[in-house]
Amino acid sequence: MNDGSIDGGRLIGRIRELGNVGRDADGQLVRLAATAADKQGRDLFVSWLKEAGLDVAVDRVGNIFGIWSAGGWEERAPLMMGSHIDSVINAGIYDGCYGVLAALEVIQTLKSSGFQPARPIVVAAFTNEEGVRFAPDMMGSLVYAGGMDVEEALAAKGTDGAVLGEELRKIGYAGPHAPGFLTPSSYIELHVEQGPVLEREGIAIGAVENLQGISWRKVVVSGTANHAGTTPTGMRSDAGYGAARIVTYLRERALASSSPMVATVGCLALEPSAVNVIPSRATLTIDMRVPFEDRLLEEEDALDRFMDQLAEEEGLSISVERLARSKPVAFDQALVEIIERAANARGLSNRRMTSGAGHDAQMIATIAPAAMIFVPSVGGISHNPAECTHEDDLVTGVNVLLDVARILSLS
Amino acid sequence: MNDGSIDGGRLIGRIRELGNVGRDADGQLVRLAATAADKQGRDLFVSWLKEAGLDVAVDRVGNIFGIWSAGGWEERAPLMMGSHIDSVINAGIYDGCYGVLAALEVIQTLKSSGFQPARPIVVAAFTNEEGVRFAPDMMGSLVYAGGMDVEEALAAKGTDGAVLGEELRKIGYAGPHAPGFLTPSSYIELHVEQGPVLEREGIAIGAVENLQGISWRKVVVSGTANHAGTTPTGMRSDAGYGAARIVTYLRERALASSSPMVATVGCLALEPSAVNVIPSRATLTIDMRVPFEDRLLEEEDALDRFMDQLAEEEGLSISVERLARSKPVAFDQALVEIIERAANARGLSNRRMTSGAGHDAQMIATIAPAAMIFVPSVGGISHNPAECTHEDDLVTGVNVLLDVARILSLS
Repeated sequence: MNDGSIDGGRLIGRIRELGNVGRDADGQLVRLAATAADKQGRDLFVSWLKEAGLDVAVDRVGNIFGIWSAGGWEERAPLMMGSHIDSVINAGIYDGCYGVLAALEVIQTLKSSGFQPARPIVVAAFTNEEGVRFAPDMMGSLVYAGGMDVEEALAAKGTDGAVLGEELRKIGYAGPHAPGFLTPSSYIELHVEQGPVLEREGIAIGAVENLQGISWRKVVVSGTANHAGTTPTGMRSDAGYGAARIVTYLRERALASSSPMVATVGCLALEPSAVNVIPSRATLTIDMRVPFEDRLLEEEDALDRFMDQLAEEEGLSISVERLARSKPVAFDQALVEIIERAANARGLSNRRMTSGAGHDAQMIATIAPAAMIFVPSVGGISHNPAECTHEDDLVTGVNVLLDVARILSLS
Repeated sequence: MNDGSIDGGRLIGRIRELGNVGRDADGQLVRLAATAADKQGRDLFVSWLKEAGLDVAVDRVGNIFGIWSAGGWEERAPLMMGSHIDSVINAGIYDGCYGVLAALEVIQTLKSSGFQPARPIVVAAFTNEEGVRFAPDMMGSLVYAGGMDVEEALAAKGTDGAVLGEELRKIGYAGPHAPGFLTPSSYIELHVEQGPVLEREGIAIGAVENLQGISWRKVVVSGTANHAGTTPTGMRSDAGYGAARIVTYLRERALASSSPMVATVGCLALEPSAVNVIPSRATLTIDMRVPFEDRLLEEEDALDRFMDQLAEEEGLSISVERLARSKPVAFDQALVEIIERAANARGLSNRRMTSGAGHDAQMIATIAPAAMIFVPSVGGISHNPAECTHEDDLVTGVNVLLDVARILSLS
């Protein structure tokens, strides 16, 4: 630890230990927000915070903070690092937990090395990032950043009918602090990529400069059911063909885009669904992600125009329902540069990248300069027990976080 | 009737009366083969045959024949006309019944006009054309033409577990005659088009010169499920995109085809079917119809090559299962010309066309010269209570059949 690096063994040990908390009867990791399993995970994390000599603070929405401070908390705005420790159903052990335990590891390393930070350093674990039990996802950081009223969040009803506020009280994590009680000087979130880019390109560190805006739509294409044998091609209004054209259009747009746009049709159902009947109805979902708001708006408009033209040409009617929409997030350029410099100083290959998934960092970015660091995910797999990042890569990422934290807390 | 035309009132009245037999509790027409409802329809038809003074013969597979003959049945090969009187579930009243009752109407008209045919004239109603209760469809005519063993047909198990042979005995239509006991000199089937072509083109009579060969396939496209946000386009193996490409490919082939090819993807399902997950599997059906065997084989091969290339390009694997395959049928050119001449002689617009659906005529075509006559279907709708052909068009079609029958039985 005196060589300026973190204790990899301790880090990996904690990731594994936390990853064993919340296993169900089938051995699946299910640590949904504010459940008994989540309480077990929180208790373990808090025990480590105390063991590291940090002050523990919990806010009203259950966000947990471990604070290392020479003086009082409010002397100066703290450097904050963190992520979340709730999980999806049948989860892997890295998503979220890695960023939280990395932040703790960084603080412990700095502390034991005799480093004297010029401001408090805080590790944060935000409530209900995954959004599996309570909507919306990233709720804890959203409330913390003032994007959602705390009372509204506490009244949220879970998929199991439970109310978040009551559940937090039950597990002992309805804290006294007002969300946002600490405004960070900057926020850094280390996370597994959850995508294939770093691994495929053989790059160690992603300096995440922005986060995709997300446009979710449900599209219903209506045509006319007809006999597959007796209806000539030119006399068809084939809803399934209309849906297929939307799928191929989106691929063309994504390939032609100068920004890292992606688009996905994940659900597609035909009616009446018979081998010899032309589909009268196709219902599909579109997930479109673009990291710049003006470009995302442009793509939404272009899609609308395409579907209008398609409907006209094919004798279809197409209706669109917006399911969800979030704006892209531009992370702090100065922080991104610091991450790049830190990676370069350790001789690590690195690249700027876009986060395709949502993270707590995007919420905190509304109240403080924020950025993220990615490490490679094996096969790009996430939200799955096969989620994996090699131990070397895990340790490397935390060392970069360590160097970044040192720089950001020096002054 | 002495003006050389049929009795339109009697024809329409019988179509309506038969159409009211076999209504279920919801008023839906359901006259599945060899059910009690089918018995009612058969009994009514047979009563009309007797009323018209025809000999009634039933063969072992339940096909019913009404025979008008001066001498014994076997003096000369008979002219045969007919179709089927079983129905689909929630059927219209014209499909099949029109052709059977038209044939009876033609025979009655010729008889009462004092016409002296040079050969017997027979109206046939074939068993289980629709194939809803027992597989395969067109079973009665298939067995009649020697394409299926009668014992095998009688052993067929219905969707309700019933055995055809037993059901025919129960309803009194397990006849004594060997299927094929009459080999027709020619066979003409008048039918509603069940497609939109004649109505859209404003044409009265279709002279059907061939019948589509049908290739049914089930295709499974396998890719890799991945996060819709974090997986760049170039790193995807998107099974849904693969399926969409197959759909658009088939459209392009159908449009580019010089024959009246049609292709339909009626069923398409994605897995895991989540908004933000790239589909790992797409299961689709392909119904491809081409009226020439060499061209159908060509299209099947071209599709295989396209899917191989698609799999290669997109990192997918694609498996194909053959669900059904029937060869195209070329009807008798001389008969088609007689139909055209008959229509022209009455000043009726007409066109040659391809039947996109299967009919008993395709089975009888293997043992005798055969052809079909189509009349317009309103909106191309069939297998649906909204199935409709205007009364004028119904009568017009039977008058053409009358003229064709006169020509074919004169010598």
